[in-house]
Parts: sequence; C-alpha cells; structure tokens
Amino acid sequence: MIHIEIEKKELLKGLSLMQGIAGRKTTLPILSHIYMEWKKNSLFLTGTDLETGIQEELSATVHEEGKASISSKKLYEIVRELPEQTIQIHKKENHWIHLKCGKSVFNIAGLDPEEFPSLPVWQENSFSVVSTRMIREMIERTVFAASNEDSRYHLNGILFTQQKAEGKESLRMVATDGHRLSLVDREGQVIRGVEKGIIVPKKGILEIKKIVGDKEGEGEMGVYFDNTHAFFKMGKSLMVIRLIEGEFPEYDQVIPKNNDKKLKMGKEMIYGSLRRVSTMASERAEGVKLSLKKNSMELSSYHQDFGDAKEDIDIQYEGPPIEIGFNARYLIEALQSFDTEEILIELKDEGSPGIIRPHSPPASSHQLCIIMPMRI
Amino acid sequence: MIHIEIEKKELLKGLSLMQGIAGRKTTLPILSHIYMEWKKNSLFLTGTDLETGIQEELSATVHEEGKASISSKKLYEIVRELPEQTIQIHKKENHWIHLKCGKSVFNIAGLDPEEFPSLPVWQENSFSVVSTRMIREMIERTVFAASNEDSRYHLNGILFTQQKAEGKESLRMVATDGHRLSLVDREGQVIRGVEKGIIVPKKGILEIKKIVGDKEGEGEMGVYFDNTHAFFKMGKSLMVIRLIEGEFPEYDQVIPKNNDKKLKMGKEMIYGSLRRVSTMASERAEGVKLSLKKNSMELSSYHQDFGDAKEDIDIQYEGPPIEIGFNARYLIEALQSFDTEEILIELKDEGSPGIIRPHSPPASSHQLCIIMPMRI
Repeated sequence: MIHIEIEKKELLKGLSLMQGIAGRKTTLPILSHIYMEWKKNSLFLTGTDLETGIQEELSATVHEEGKASISSKKLYEIVRELPEQTIQIHKKENHWIHLKCGKSVFNIAGLDPEEFPSLPVWQENSFSVVSTRMIREMIERTVFAASNEDSRYHLNGILFTQQKAEGKESLRMVATDGHRLSLVDREGQVIRGVEKGIIVPKKGILEIKKIVGDKEGEGEMGVYFDNTHAFFKMGKSLMVIRLIEGEFPEYDQVIPKNNDKKLKMGKEMIYGSLRRVSTMASERAEGVKLSLKKNSMELSSYHQDFGDAKEDIDIQYEGPPIEIGFNARYLIEALQSFDTEEILIELKDEGSPGIIRPHSPPASSHQLCIIMPMRI
Repeated sequence: MIHIEIEKKELLKGLSLMQGIAGRKTTLPILSHIYMEWKKNSLFLTGTDLETGIQEELSATVHEEGKASISSKKLYEIVRELPEQTIQIHKKENHWIHLKCGKSVFNIAGLDPEEFPSLPVWQENSFSVVSTRMIREMIERTVFAASNEDSRYHLNGILFTQQKAEGKESLRMVATDGHRLSLVDREGQVIRGVEKGIIVPKKGILEIKKIVGDKEGEGEMGVYFDNTHAFFKMGKSLMVIRLIEGEFPEYDQVIPKNNDKKLKMGKEMIYGSLRRVSTMASERAEGVKLSLKKNSMELSSYHQDFGDAKEDIDIQYEGPPIEIGFNARYLIEALQSFDTEEILIELKDEGSPGIIRPHSPPASSHQLCIIMPMRI
C-alpha cells in the first residue's frame, strides 16, 4: 500500500536545501538524517545541526499519515538519479521505507523518527513581514566582516538591532572581526524583538542567503526573534537559528568622528587597481600602501620574494600628502558590498582607522566600513 | 627601453596552459618558473616538471632579444588582473623584469634563465600528421582504465602500438589497471616509432587532452616518438612527455575468446539504471549484481547500512539464466566512453571477465572494454 506520492522534482528541491545543514555535525547519528512527516497534502522535511534548523513544506498526495527518519545524503543521492516521475513511498516496519519510482525499487533503512530532535516552537502570528531583498542586501553588506575565528565566538555573527535617530526608527546590522567593521541601516524598518540587540551566527546567515537566492520570486519574508532563537520564514521554508550568547562590542565608540581627509573616486577604478597591485602583497599581511597627493593616489605593494607593484589613479582630494597602509582584501571586500559608482574614503592620519563608504546611496540607506590601518 | 611588447590576452592564453605543469613539483625552485625567450616576432614560454614539458609560441613585437625565468603562478596572477592592453616588458639586471601595462608597473624577481632545464631535442621533420579529433577520441576511450596507483607504475599510462591484421595497419591504444582494460583500434592509421609499443603516462595524456580541448579548431596535429619521449605538436603548442619504462602486460591473453552469452541493450537505459541502483552499492566495492533471464536483466545492489535497490530493464538476450557481479563505476565509465546508441555485453559465466563494447561503431574503428567480475 502506498502511503504518500510526491513528484521527484518537488522532493529533490526540498532535499537539496537540507544538504548544507543535515550531516554537518556527526556527533549524533540522527543529525545526519532528515525527519519526514506527511499529513494532509504536505510532506514536511526537517534537518538540523542543533544550531541551525530548517523545515520545508512540500506538495504531496498523502494516502495515510506517517513519519520517518532517513539519511539525508543517501536519500538525496537516490532521488537525484530518479526519472522525472512520481515517487511512491510506503513506510515499513523497523523504521524502513520502501520507495518506488518508474522501474526502480529501493528499501531504505531509517531510525526511529521519535528520536529526531524537535525544532524550537514558534508562534505563527509573531512574525514581522519584511522585504526579502532588503534582508538579503543588508546581510551581503555586513556578513563579510564577521569573524571566522572560533576563539572570538561573540564576533562570529551579525548584530541585529533597532536604532532611533531624530525620531526615526531604523533596522541596523553590524559585523566586525576586530580588524574591520561593517554597518548598515535601513530607515523606517522595524523588527520586533531586536531592540536590545541580538547576534545571529554567520553559519546560519549564510544558509539564509542560500535559500533567499533560491526564492528570488518571494517579495516578502517573515522574521521573528525570541530570547534564544531567530526564525526566518520564506515561502514554504522555515529556518531556525540559535542566537549567539554574549556581548557584542561597543561598536559606536570605534566609529571615527574626526576623519577630515576626504577622498572621492570611481569604485571600479580603485577596485581594479587594488586587485592588480595586491598581487604583489605578501600572502600573510596582504598590505597595500596608499600614498595621497592633491587629486592623485598611488597604490603600491612589496613582496619579499616576488618584487613590487604600483599604480597611480586619479581621485578627488584637496588635503595634504599622507601615506597609509591597509589590508587589500579588506578594502576589496568592502568595495564589493557597495552598489554605487563612486565611493568615499575618510582618513585622519596614518595611525588611525579609515572609513570607506558608498557615495551616494539612497537617502533611506546608510552604510559604512571601518578598517584598521597597518604599517607597510 | 622596452625589449618586448605583447597583448595581455595573448600572454594570458600562454600562461594559463602552463599552470598545470609548472610548479607541480617543488623539489627544484626553478621548476615553479616558466622560461621566457623572445626573438624575431615571438615570445616562447616553456614550463616543465621534468616528466612533462610544454612550449608555447606567442605573437609579440620584439625590440631586443632576451630571456628570463619568472614564477609561473605569480606572473599568471598578475597578468590575469591586467587591463586588455599591450604589456611592455624590459629585462633588468640580476634577472629581474620590469613589466608595464596601462597605469600599472611591476618589478618582478627572476632566476638565471640559463639554469632552466632544457626540453629534449626534437626533429621538426619527423612528426607524423594525424587528426586531432582522432587522437582525442582514442585517448578518451582508453585513459579512464589506466591505473592511478603509484606502485603499478607501468600501468599508469596508455600503450600506443601498431597492429597488423589481414594486411591492414591500425593504430592501437590500450590501458589497464589490472581490474579492467580498454582497447581501441583505428584502421589505416600509422604513427612512426610506436611499432614496438610505447607507454605514455596518464598525467601527460591528461595535459594533452586539455590542450586539444582548447584547440578544437586545429584539424591536425603532429606526433613523434623517440626512445625516451613522446612529442605532440598542436598549432603553436609543443608538448614533450617522458615515456614510462617497463613492460606493458600481455593484454592479448586476457581478452576472452569464448564469451558466448551475448546481451544487446540501449546505452542510455542501462546507464541510467546503473546510476540509480549503484547509489545503494557499498562505497568500497561498488558492486552491482546483474541477473539475466530471457530478454530481461535485473540490476540490484545492497548496502549494509542503507538498504537495497533493484531495477528491471528490457534487453535482447536468448541465453540461459546467469547472475554476475561487476564494479558499477567500471561499467559506467566504459559506457561513458561509447558513442553508439546500443551496446553489447558478452559473458561466459559468473567467474569470468565480461566484455562490453559499443554496437555498432564505424567499420574502421574497433573498441572494447574488459571488466573482471566480482562476488556479490
């Protein structure tokens, strides 16, 4: 007897979204599984590594309700090879399932679905509705600056917070690894639960980016935070991410206030120049020196084994000569997050952090990166 | 003073072909370099790992002849980022070069070019001219069966030999890893120097495949063998490969003569079925069982942890029931090398090697794979 029928394409879509999460941690065998539950006209798939969880609702024809727990990777490998036809699934004893598609027949071993860890509970009516594109853009403009070092756990994520200035509310995201910081504000945007500031880990953020990329059609998504978790709802996908506990640094204090030397230049011009000159930067420090004169900047680098490189570019700058070194990759990644044709760099002196920002973004959007200088 | 001028695009093309070879071995620092020599209207690039060498002739404007030895990887990284303009190069003292393109200026450290190992000498008029497509096809139909195990050095390549049957000469290529063998003949094709059988290593063969892929336009190529090296000339590229010393196995003896059970089937049908059923084969043995009945074959597999799979397909077969196991990947790779819609499998019994071949290839072409059976 068939318990559930589902199109191969539909099941493959759901399984492929699970692959980044299920099986990432191998401490508990059941975490390499996906939990399947079928009822009414849906098959629900759930995968989790206990930090990030994802649930997908798929369209299916359910003849008899049931649940199962099956290896995520193996099921994905099988379904990927199946013909584009209807898959018939029958739950057998001992947690096995019987799967049939076209002329292929599979008996697949499973575990007790009752042992699968359940996702934290969410409240359907607590979600704030926000623009999917806005969330994606704000993430892309901050996430690159988050730390990858396990020892700096509280910096391994993006701070979500609510900002009030001149009576206007903004949603703010901030990320920093201690050497650089990126910050973006979106005016008029309010999300319940982030007022006090919550930290969403980078790993989960990157999974959201992936799903959002798959759902470009969805104009809106739901976002909701409780004390321990963030919940993101995109179409029929739900993602749950455990928040990072700990204090985010007092980033307001590191934003320089007196950077009076202002440089304006074309983004593509400095981007290409940095990519060329940084080929001669040392692999470890990745340093590039910027040497400023009136309306001109020389970029230069030196590699102990391979030689040196330099390039002059035209900029708008009226201040005194100054030389300052930066990590080239930090500059390049900041530039990649900007979507304006021109950019501004604001400096104080060779020992103080620089600010780099797009020029000029829409009035409702505010973005900047701060980068620590380095000796070259 | 400028010594040589070359378009960025032209230099990048040459450098990218070198990247697979230069720097592969790091025993001698100079092997991570490319040798550059400019004279008349050409820049010659040479890279070698002492087993495989490649020389490219590029179009350039030479103002003063010279040579240099520069890090292959670093030069490639730099040139890749340059604008699409003319590159000017000037040889400086101490083996450095000065490179300028657009507004970018590089000083690049080098080594003494006289220390670069020279390629073996070849004779321009000794090359046999053959069809590039034929060489590519014959390689693709054999190379997958060559061994990757370092301990079986004499099996790490393709045997090139000349075959005579019924007064007709054929070029033959054979590869085997001891578990399977692939053989292809091309009637009427003669290459000087391979009569006694020479073994060209797989690594070099794969580099040839890459270059041939880049030069689809070139209808013909030159091939030449001396006692120690193979030489392949494709357009302005020349590749030199050190032959493998040692005896190739007496492969004629392992070709079964009495495989009287003949099965005919559609290639796509068995290919798809093998891909599906093999998802449940064990990772180590990759075994799939074929169970034959009149005009039907069941493919099945079993995995200790994950379960089992099976599928029935329609074939043409008039013989008695027989069950035989094969490594699924060996069957799949053999099928991928065939370009006919139907294939033949010829079996004797469950303990004897099977033959798999395309049905029916052009009369001038002859191809077969032999695969050892396995217990399932």
